[in-house]
Amino acid sequence: MTKKLKMGMVGGGQGAFIGAVHRFAAALDGEIELVCGAFSSEPNKALASGKELGIPDNRNYPGFQEMFAAEQRLPENERMDFVAIVTPNHMHFPVACAALESGFHVICDKPATLNLGEAKELSAIVANTGLLFGLTHTYTGYPMVKEARQIVADGKLGNLRKVIVEYTQGWLTEAEDSNNKQAAWRTNPKTSGISGCMGDIGSHAANLAEYISSETIEQLCAELTTFVPGRLLDDDGMALMKMSGGIKGILHASQVACGEENNLTIRAYGDKGGLEWRQQEPNSLVLKWLNEPMQIMRTGGNNSALATANTRTPMGHPEGYLEAFANIYRNFVLAVQAHKLGKNSSPKAFDYPGIEDGVHGMAIIESLVNSHNSNEKWLTVNS
Amino acid sequence: MTKKLKMGMVGGGQGAFIGAVHRFAAALDGEIELVCGAFSSEPNKALASGKELGIPDNRNYPGFQEMFAAEQRLPENERMDFVAIVTPNHMHFPVACAALESGFHVICDKPATLNLGEAKELSAIVANTGLLFGLTHTYTGYPMVKEARQIVADGKLGNLRKVIVEYTQGWLTEAEDSNNKQAAWRTNPKTSGISGCMGDIGSHAANLAEYISSETIEQLCAELTTFVPGRLLDDDGMALMKMSGGIKGILHASQVACGEENNLTIRAYGDKGGLEWRQQEPNSLVLKWLNEPMQIMRTGGNNSALATANTRTPMGHPEGYLEAFANIYRNFVLAVQAHKLGKNSSPKAFDYPGIEDGVHGMAIIESLVNSHNSNEKWLTVNS
Amino acid sequence: MTKKLKMGMVGGGQGAFIGAVHRFAAALDGEIELVCGAFSSEPNKALASGKELGIPDNRNYPGFQEMFAAEQRLPENERMDFVAIVTPNHMHFPVACAALESGFHVICDKPATLNLGEAKELSAIVANTGLLFGLTHTYTGYPMVKEARQIVADGKLGNLRKVIVEYTQGWLTEAEDSNNKQAAWRTNPKTSGISGCMGDIGSHAANLAEYISSETIEQLCAELTTFVPGRLLDDDGMALMKMSGGIKGILHASQVACGEENNLTIRAYGDKGGLEWRQQEPNSLVLKWLNEPMQIMRTGGNNSALATANTRTPMGHPEGYLEAFANIYRNFVLAVQAHKLGKNSSPKAFDYPGIEDGVHGMAIIESLVNSHNSNEKWLTVNS
Amino acid sequence: MTKKLKMGMVGGGQGAFIGAVHRFAAALDGEIELVCGAFSSEPNKALASGKELGIPDNRNYPGFQEMFAAEQRLPENERMDFVAIVTPNHMHFPVACAALESGFHVICDKPATLNLGEAKELSAIVANTGLLFGLTHTYTGYPMVKEARQIVADGKLGNLRKVIVEYTQGWLTEAEDSNNKQAAWRTNPKTSGISGCMGDIGSHAANLAEYISSETIEQLCAELTTFVPGRLLDDDGMALMKMSGGIKGILHASQVACGEENNLTIRAYGDKGGLEWRQQEPNSLVLKWLNEPMQIMRTGGNNSALATANTRTPMGHPEGYLEAFANIYRNFVLAVQAHKLGKNSSPKAFDYPGIEDGVHGMAIIESLVNSHNSNEKWLTVNS
Repeated sequence: MTKKLKMGMVGGGQGAFIGAVHRFAAALDGEIELVCGAFSSEPNKALASGKELGIPDNRNYPGFQEMFAAEQRLPENERMDFVAIVTPNHMHFPVACAALESGFHVICDKPATLNLGEAKELSAIVANTGLLFGLTHTYTGYPMVKEARQIVADGKLGNLRKVIVEYTQGWLTEAEDSNNKQAAWRTNPKTSGISGCMGDIGSHAANLAEYISSETIEQLCAELTTFVPGRLLDDDGMALMKMSGGIKGILHASQVACGEENNLTIRAYGDKGGLEWRQQEPNSLVLKWLNEPMQIMRTGGNNSALATANTRTPMGHPEGYLEAFANIYRNFVLAVQAHKLGKNSSPKAFDYPGIEDGVHGMAIIESLVNSHNSNEKWLTVNS
Repeated sequence: MTKKLKMGMVGGGQGAFIGAVHRFAAALDGEIELVCGAFSSEPNKALASGKELGIPDNRNYPGFQEMFAAEQRLPENERMDFVAIVTPNHMHFPVACAALESGFHVICDKPATLNLGEAKELSAIVANTGLLFGLTHTYTGYPMVKEARQIVADGKLGNLRKVIVEYTQGWLTEAEDSNNKQAAWRTNPKTSGISGCMGDIGSHAANLAEYISSETIEQLCAELTTFVPGRLLDDDGMALMKMSGGIKGILHASQVACGEENNLTIRAYGDKGGLEWRQQEPNSLVLKWLNEPMQIMRTGGNNSALATANTRTPMGHPEGYLEAFANIYRNFVLAVQAHKLGKNSSPKAFDYPGIEDGVHGMAIIESLVNSHNSNEKWLTVNS
Repeated sequence: MTKKLKMGMVGGGQGAFIGAVHRFAAALDGEIELVCGAFSSEPNKALASGKELGIPDNRNYPGFQEMFAAEQRLPENERMDFVAIVTPNHMHFPVACAALESGFHVICDKPATLNLGEAKELSAIVANTGLLFGLTHTYTGYPMVKEARQIVADGKLGNLRKVIVEYTQGWLTEAEDSNNKQAAWRTNPKTSGISGCMGDIGSHAANLAEYISSETIEQLCAELTTFVPGRLLDDDGMALMKMSGGIKGILHASQVACGEENNLTIRAYGDKGGLEWRQQEPNSLVLKWLNEPMQIMRTGGNNSALATANTRTPMGHPEGYLEAFANIYRNFVLAVQAHKLGKNSSPKAFDYPGIEDGVHGMAIIESLVNSHNSNEKWLTVNS
Repeated sequence: MTKKLKMGMVGGGQGAFIGAVHRFAAALDGEIELVCGAFSSEPNKALASGKELGIPDNRNYPGFQEMFAAEQRLPENERMDFVAIVTPNHMHFPVACAALESGFHVICDKPATLNLGEAKELSAIVANTGLLFGLTHTYTGYPMVKEARQIVADGKLGNLRKVIVEYTQGWLTEAEDSNNKQAAWRTNPKTSGISGCMGDIGSHAANLAEYISSETIEQLCAELTTFVPGRLLDDDGMALMKMSGGIKGILHASQVACGEENNLTIRAYGDKGGLEWRQQEPNSLVLKWLNEPMQIMRTGGNNSALATANTRTPMGHPEGYLEAFANIYRNFVLAVQAHKLGKNSSPKAFDYPGIEDGVHGMAIIESLVNSHNSNEKWLTVNS
């Protein structure tokens, strides 16, 4: 094993959800050390959070600017290698730009930025700096999602015709409690962007459909709804899709699907077979055939190299959300190590979501909103 | 028990699928006797089929006109009480009209007719004759579908917001074999109508959504596809929906969803709870709640009067497709018996699908095709 | 089709459960006509029940002796062909003997008799009369159970090593209500026999294990329990088993498994593969393999001739308990028709459970009770 | 957060399975640092393994004696706090004794020792040293197992009557490959003990039954089998059980259940309700009731404090095997921290399996073997 990589974190302080998830994911393989952080936009809260997390005082920063400046001054073998950005959406862009311009690789929660313009600008900065940008589209980290991608790529399902992807949750069924920090920023256009539900989770669904099919969403026909009175952004959305390769599909997301937990599911049908995967039982991949019994592939089974490389335990020892998340981190870490050696460290080479996924994801969100506001049936996605 | 009702059948001879299903369904409760039939449009095949079914020669007819004429001449306590029409779609209208005009009640496979015009005409004839018309939308015959309808009607889910209904099959994934009688007529506009997949199974899905929600599909935005080259009608369709009561929804059907069997599923979400039902495991109804564990209602359990009246066996003794079908027949039989006594025998009173469902179903099929052909996003369903 | 067979029924009057099930099962295929009955041991109740069922007065009998005597006197083409016995257990033997001795075939609910001695005597009478005796071990009527039997017989699982069969219900969790007719007779040694739970449902489980494996239970080590105070018979039982062919196994039944419905499940493992079937989702048969993904066989799929012959609807149109029951009836009817033609009509030839199953089943029940009462570990089953 | 605890490891080098699992589990929460190790009984392999794992040379030891000696000499704030033992079974006892006697807490893979005698001796040493001993009975680390224990303890199921626990695997269906290190030591009495399957996985099943029920296995009636010719230990076992509190039950384990992965399941039935949990879908806990619909509790839902304290992610974000394992580690870490502060650090207080579980587990394994070898039906477990 090469030495542990050093990670800093921006955001993810007290009361946050996704910050803790990133820390679990980074810790799991014992290959990353959290060495510093600026854990909140409020300096006092930032420092208190870092203290709780056991960050030494001298690397527990009141803000991200201070952190980047201070870390830059440290000797190379001491300073952080990359920063994890886990703030609300509106801060992704400024923090990522500052990090890259300070010479640090970035791994960022999704969506990449607040809007498409920022995403394109960020893409240029990534290109210019030659540094790495990873985007934590968690769900593509699951072994059986990777197996699904490989099966499609190998042509086992024949030519894909239909993709149905859905991400339903119920936690915003009622008006958000002002004390619920998660709900508050996610339903606020200033911190979340032009879309609520579709930006937050519809974007995961779209990304999953594209990852598994290796095809691109080209046209959309969308209807977004705000079911809860007073809410400023959509809490539900549905769209018909046309994808490259002649695929038709459905994209559906809701945060008012009362009683649903985190119900991301995808089905894809080709002219030789079909597949089905459900995030809540992530270790099974159902394959359906024309004249043969359906089969259930399992994490840890006799799977493709792609899936196996992202599997930690034998069949029947369930892997979960944190392991999927950790796969994103691990693949990103491998890329950072390759970058240090001057080797190809691209998202394609190391199978992690990058800035291209970020730009395209923002384009889809904007297209969904534009389609909703249009009377034309089909709108072309431009990214 | 009152005396068994006497049934005649038109269609359903050798090589047919749905005719046998109707016969099983009619036989199950021991309340219906199959006394006569004209089992094919080809006289020789009709007679051979009837012979195989044990129909006495004198009531085994070469054609439906002969049957209606001959049965009319029999004494009232001998002649058939009603006719079951199980022909390809294009014959529903002429046979139903002839039956009603000859004084016989009709139970007819769906869709009611070949097109909306015929359906409206048939509706007028039903009204004029005062006779009964039942339509075998099988899937609303399942006990747990009835339980779902009752739960929604009782407001247990609060105000419905979202309905997602899907009916996927895979049996037309490849080009139909010219020897497959089922495939042949279902993909032929002359015998099937203006839509293939949406007419055949999308119509069941739409009916199920309306039955469970007690609301109506008002607007549609549809995309139909013919994936298999050379096929004349759609083999796949998907639509966004707006229903009465402010409900948004998705309607999806496919006959090229490779590996799917008969995958009719529905989910409905209100502001207090959600439900999920899957035809392939029809004895479970999943209820999902905001802050309580999900529950699974079961056929034969402590259910509503509506469900219990349509249940034959105790919990854990699975009921299936034929029992659901038999419920349509049994409720229709109860209505015929009420009609004989001069009592109210309407579909509403006896919970069976009638001509109104038939007209509305045809309107939806036409709307789906029209929407598909339009660049406008939303099209209003007029029935 | 040959003419409908004529059936009489003993038992199954008002308040009964299984009588109605037999009538549904007999009616489903339209090949059996219920022509007469003695529906209760109480003459008035018998007559009232028959009237409700639409039996004509002249063939609605106050008792089974009267019925057999009167039917014998009818012309051959009018009198009943066979009798269905659906009384409590203690009446199976006297009614079956009387029927056979009066020249009528018998189809009888299980267990065959009240004890092993009666079963052996009945077996001799069946042999002497040359008439047919069918036993409604319903669960072997399911298509996927037949598929399982065929798969094992074909050696696809290799040599069987382990069989785990379980039948759990919860409906006797609390002390039986004296108004619950079902509970009353099933927990009474006079009407039920020496075992409660094991006799009622453990016997089904044992039969299923032997049917699927084509092997015999040879040794048992049992522990029976009466959990509910005051109950006279076991309401729970469990046993280790040794079967022919070197198979080891577990047999478990309970009627106090609170919250279970009718949870009959079986698993069998050989040295090449394993299978799993669950009665509550009877249309799936799971096959498990050493180094290949598990497969799910489905009713109506590309199955063996044995399963297909017992299937009525295409894949995805669920068959249930009544269809399985009807398969027992239909196979028995085919045997009766063969008997009329003087052909081989044995249980083996027509795949229905016969008196041999009845004798062996009673031997197993007695062995379970004897093993429970012994301090020896293993007890040999002698039938 | 207090400072990270320092962990050493014995065993778990190249080719091992469970060592890596312990390292993942220890790393996940970022509260433990792996500082040293003696990763194999072969010195060269030990050193090579440690190098791969990034252990600094000066703390990468050729053997456990060297490690304990060297670590003792380090300053208190530098030396390891506890040692994780992940060797084959026969080394658990000598390594644990040496560690405790050198002043180090121990967390040990199960079973605690090679036999009951060693376990009792080890128990005395734990008591004498006053140090902590944790045993990684992983499966009791799952949140929904803890929820199950709490539900039973709260009396929600009433008085328990029946417990059925099963642990089936298929990976030893065929004769073990001599190159499969896992198979080799697990089927060798010298490294594994007197029982193969029951020692390896039956012990987990027994522990789970006792943890959830809060009752003790008192009597056993067992049948063990070696199905694969030439294998020296049982590869399959089954037993009837009597537990304290009047519970009857079944304990079943197999490693030749062809096609099973890691199928640990438990069901428990009381006089008010029942529960079911399956390790392969560990985030659901099914509750079954007498007259109410079954409910499904979910990890991250509205659960007990006990379950919630062992949950990392919200509902619908599946937790898996490594998280369950990490819960054992985390609770052990909390106990070590309490011990440092001189507070109560017992297994009961911190909900981790301790030496008592180890002794009792060994007693059960011995009882299973003794019962198998006896013709007496019931054998009492003495621990």
